[in-house]
Amino acid sequence: MSHPPSLRHRLAKQLDPQLYPHQGLSLLNLLIAWVILLGIVLAILQTEPTIRQGHEGWFRLTELLLASVFLLEYLARAWTCVENDAYTQRWRYLLSFFALADLVAIVVAFSVYLGNGGVLLRLLLLIRILRLARLGRFSTALDCIAQAIRSRAYELLISAIFALLILLTSSTLLFLVEGDLQPDAFGSIPRAAWWAVATLTTVGYGDVYPVTVLGRVLAGLTAISGICIIAIPTGILASAFSDALQEAKQRQHSLPKRTDLPH
Amino acid sequence: MSHPPSLRHRLAKQLDPQLYPHQGLSLLNLLIAWVILLGIVLAILQTEPTIRQGHEGWFRLTELLLASVFLLEYLARAWTCVENDAYTQRWRYLLSFFALADLVAIVVAFSVYLGNGGVLLRLLLLIRILRLARLGRFSTALDCIAQAIRSRAYELLISAIFALLILLTSSTLLFLVEGDLQPDAFGSIPRAAWWAVATLTTVGYGDVYPVTVLGRVLAGLTAISGICIIAIPTGILASAFSDALQEAKQRQHSLPKRTDLPH
Amino acid sequence: MSHPPSLRHRLAKQLDPQLYPHQGLSLLNLLIAWVILLGIVLAILQTEPTIRQGHEGWFRLTELLLASVFLLEYLARAWTCVENDAYTQRWRYLLSFFALADLVAIVVAFSVYLGNGGVLLRLLLLIRILRLARLGRFSTALDCIAQAIRSRAYELLISAIFALLILLTSSTLLFLVEGDLQPDAFGSIPRAAWWAVATLTTVGYGDVYPVTVLGRVLAGLTAISGICIIAIPTGILASAFSDALQEAKQRQHSLPKRTDLPH
Amino acid sequence: MSHPPSLRHRLAKQLDPQLYPHQGLSLLNLLIAWVILLGIVLAILQTEPTIRQGHEGWFRLTELLLASVFLLEYLARAWTCVENDAYTQRWRYLLSFFALADLVAIVVAFSVYLGNGGVLLRLLLLIRILRLARLGRFSTALDCIAQAIRSRAYELLISAIFALLILLTSSTLLFLVEGDLQPDAFGSIPRAAWWAVATLTTVGYGDVYPVTVLGRVLAGLTAISGICIIAIPTGILASAFSDALQEAKQRQHSLPKRTDLPH
Repeated sequence: MSHPPSLRHRLAKQLDPQLYPHQGLSLLNLLIAWVILLGIVLAILQTEPTIRQGHEGWFRLTELLLASVFLLEYLARAWTCVENDAYTQRWRYLLSFFALADLVAIVVAFSVYLGNGGVLLRLLLLIRILRLARLGRFSTALDCIAQAIRSRAYELLISAIFALLILLTSSTLLFLVEGDLQPDAFGSIPRAAWWAVATLTTVGYGDVYPVTVLGRVLAGLTAISGICIIAIPTGILASAFSDALQEAKQRQHSLPKRTDLPH
Repeated sequence: MSHPPSLRHRLAKQLDPQLYPHQGLSLLNLLIAWVILLGIVLAILQTEPTIRQGHEGWFRLTELLLASVFLLEYLARAWTCVENDAYTQRWRYLLSFFALADLVAIVVAFSVYLGNGGVLLRLLLLIRILRLARLGRFSTALDCIAQAIRSRAYELLISAIFALLILLTSSTLLFLVEGDLQPDAFGSIPRAAWWAVATLTTVGYGDVYPVTVLGRVLAGLTAISGICIIAIPTGILASAFSDALQEAKQRQHSLPKRTDLPH
Repeated sequence: MSHPPSLRHRLAKQLDPQLYPHQGLSLLNLLIAWVILLGIVLAILQTEPTIRQGHEGWFRLTELLLASVFLLEYLARAWTCVENDAYTQRWRYLLSFFALADLVAIVVAFSVYLGNGGVLLRLLLLIRILRLARLGRFSTALDCIAQAIRSRAYELLISAIFALLILLTSSTLLFLVEGDLQPDAFGSIPRAAWWAVATLTTVGYGDVYPVTVLGRVLAGLTAISGICIIAIPTGILASAFSDALQEAKQRQHSLPKRTDLPH
Repeated sequence: MSHPPSLRHRLAKQLDPQLYPHQGLSLLNLLIAWVILLGIVLAILQTEPTIRQGHEGWFRLTELLLASVFLLEYLARAWTCVENDAYTQRWRYLLSFFALADLVAIVVAFSVYLGNGGVLLRLLLLIRILRLARLGRFSTALDCIAQAIRSRAYELLISAIFALLILLTSSTLLFLVEGDLQPDAFGSIPRAAWWAVATLTTVGYGDVYPVTVLGRVLAGLTAISGICIIAIPTGILASAFSDALQEAKQRQHSLPKRTDLPH
């Protein structure tokens, strides 16, 4: 009776990234990642009527196939989870966040078409892929970005508050100046805010814009403020990334024989 | 008679940030901050006709309630101000900038609807919230941003002058090239400047754009100059933030036993 | 006869920045700078028909007044120029670039209205203001920006070549994909380039845009490339400014007693 | 019989950058580069009907002339290639990537007009110019940019994944919110993605935009996310360029007697 435990152990090593002895994804997990991506792409394409029309049956079939793969994976994970010391009791795994998300994704995949709202549920598959994301070099790079942003949280928050104040000021001024002329576009501060957001972010849809001289002067000043609003957080982040990387280098130098960190 | 002074002292510690012994905002000031924010949101929403219509009475009532809260706060501050050594004489506080701004905000809140111009007065509430803003970590981060901008004031001013020269040049050229074809859009340098601002800031509303070959070549060059105009101040600010933070760190290291966060 | 040379010397010290003993602009030069700025503003406003109409006489009078001031300044400079050792012979000054530019500006100002082309000549006044610009702190900041850009000239040139290649590629592809559907917008590579410039610089006027699926996918890729094209030179300039300032600091530290440099 | 080999050797030194003893391009290669650029410009201009019309014969003639120059160059390279030790056997050169690209460019240039698809073939000339590009300072600057991007490959990849997730999220949300109101613009996730790309890159064509309150709030958040998406890779690249240049400097200092510029 030494064979089945060996199979379970080998399968666990393929399924559980923590038990996988090499860096990166195991072959089985890589395959599952691609199947999940395929499921996401199918969920997106299904929303397009010109693609869905006439292929409903084909889409349904593919989805059932994908759902079967996910069901098999779920059962396999439920069987092998006890190999990981974190889940010595099986129900601990079954009630974990990722296992429950898997279950929902499978139930959704097996259920009939749920209307537009069902798209959101189908995109829950993205959560499933997250479990495979925090691996190796990507994880280090992600930490570097996250640390750079966190280290300047207050500076970035102040930029955001500053941006909000400029948004409020320019909306109010344009509402006062052009509110009577273009009631649909600038008839209230919330309406003017739609224009102000498009201008400050330099998106500039062009559906609404001021027509009076004073309104255009204010719009010009708003657009220039928008550039500053982009420049300040960019500058903050640039220096933050520079510092985060220098710290990472120094940590690497001070720690002896840290071979596993990506160079 | 030892009780009333104790109550006044306890209330002053809640109301006056300088007397508050802990970091951050006191519970009472936090509550007031939220009430002020609510007042600002209400002032903004009131300008929207589809929201105001049919709810005028409700808005008026809420405003009177908010005004009463502010009046109570004003009276409480006027009573407790003498606890702070800066205002040993009560009239010194009553004539201070923030107290007068409070009074105006209260009078405005109690007055009848003042038309669109009243919105500006209602947004005076924002000044009231500023008194609570310069606190703890936020103040440090704000200083860091302010210092970074100040340390490169001349470089940023030159970028601005450079931007103004490009704005003037592109407006003049487009006026000469497309002035006769599109008199409404490019019939004078100030009119062409509206297009030039939208292009240089890369907002690009699309209400006016050149149609001739030469005009489009010049517009392309203007748009590319716009990117440079964004890139140069961003680069200046990025290096400024990097320096400002390094200086802040060095200052922290040179001061012995500075265990807490700066101010 | 000791009085007239003294007056000429005092006037020369006011007019010639090189002879002015203090930092910044002399009172007289500051006044002239403001008169030049006024002349530029008037030249700009004159192009606007709604402003010019009915005020032609007033504009003409102001211009003649300004021209008289410039003539007086020109004569004063011609009289005092010999005080500067660089112009021991008066004709050397009279044939210098700035003196000739002055002469042209005066002749233009005195001449009758020259149509739209005259605007360009009037903006020659901007050259006159340049002579006053390279002064004190501004000059140092300008040098810092110029050095930062020069030190990365090759990197910036490669970014520009790279941008040009992407521009050419996206124009060609959109011409091939949408050329038949929208001949006015994408009927040739130069036509498609107008769209490509607006997209790569993220201006996005919205006068032309692809309508087919493939065209939109390519447009999306072009827009994303546009962000990279902005990010790369911005990054290059950010590090260049950082280095330029550090070098300026080190130079300042290594030179003993350099008191005149702005800190 | 010592003269013809001398001619071949002198020609080889002019044609082959590796044999050219000076820095930069030889006179002959510079001439060829300009002829190639002329060929590219002609290929671009030919696509414009208003330019081609009535000048077809002239264009055809110029193209045949250019093709003859390229043929001469090809024969000269084929004759002189053996001077370079890398191509001791002539067929090795004739089968090299650049020689084959030359051959295709020549065949295309001699062939009759090939319709729009022919433009792509004509732009193969760009490949020919690449062989001349990796020279001197440009090569160093190109290496510096390439190294900066490569050193942060993982951080940039994560930014891209992050951008893709925001793109997917905003497309899905706008599809759910405005899908029924504007089926053409937001009727499916792929359709909404067109709007999302234009918004996230801050291009903002303005052909599609949300009209409901919730849709506009989401659009505002998307536009603000777009700024972050621009700011993060810009910040990453800024610090990367700073590091790449510092490393290049240190390498230069550590190498003794490296008087010339790298490669």
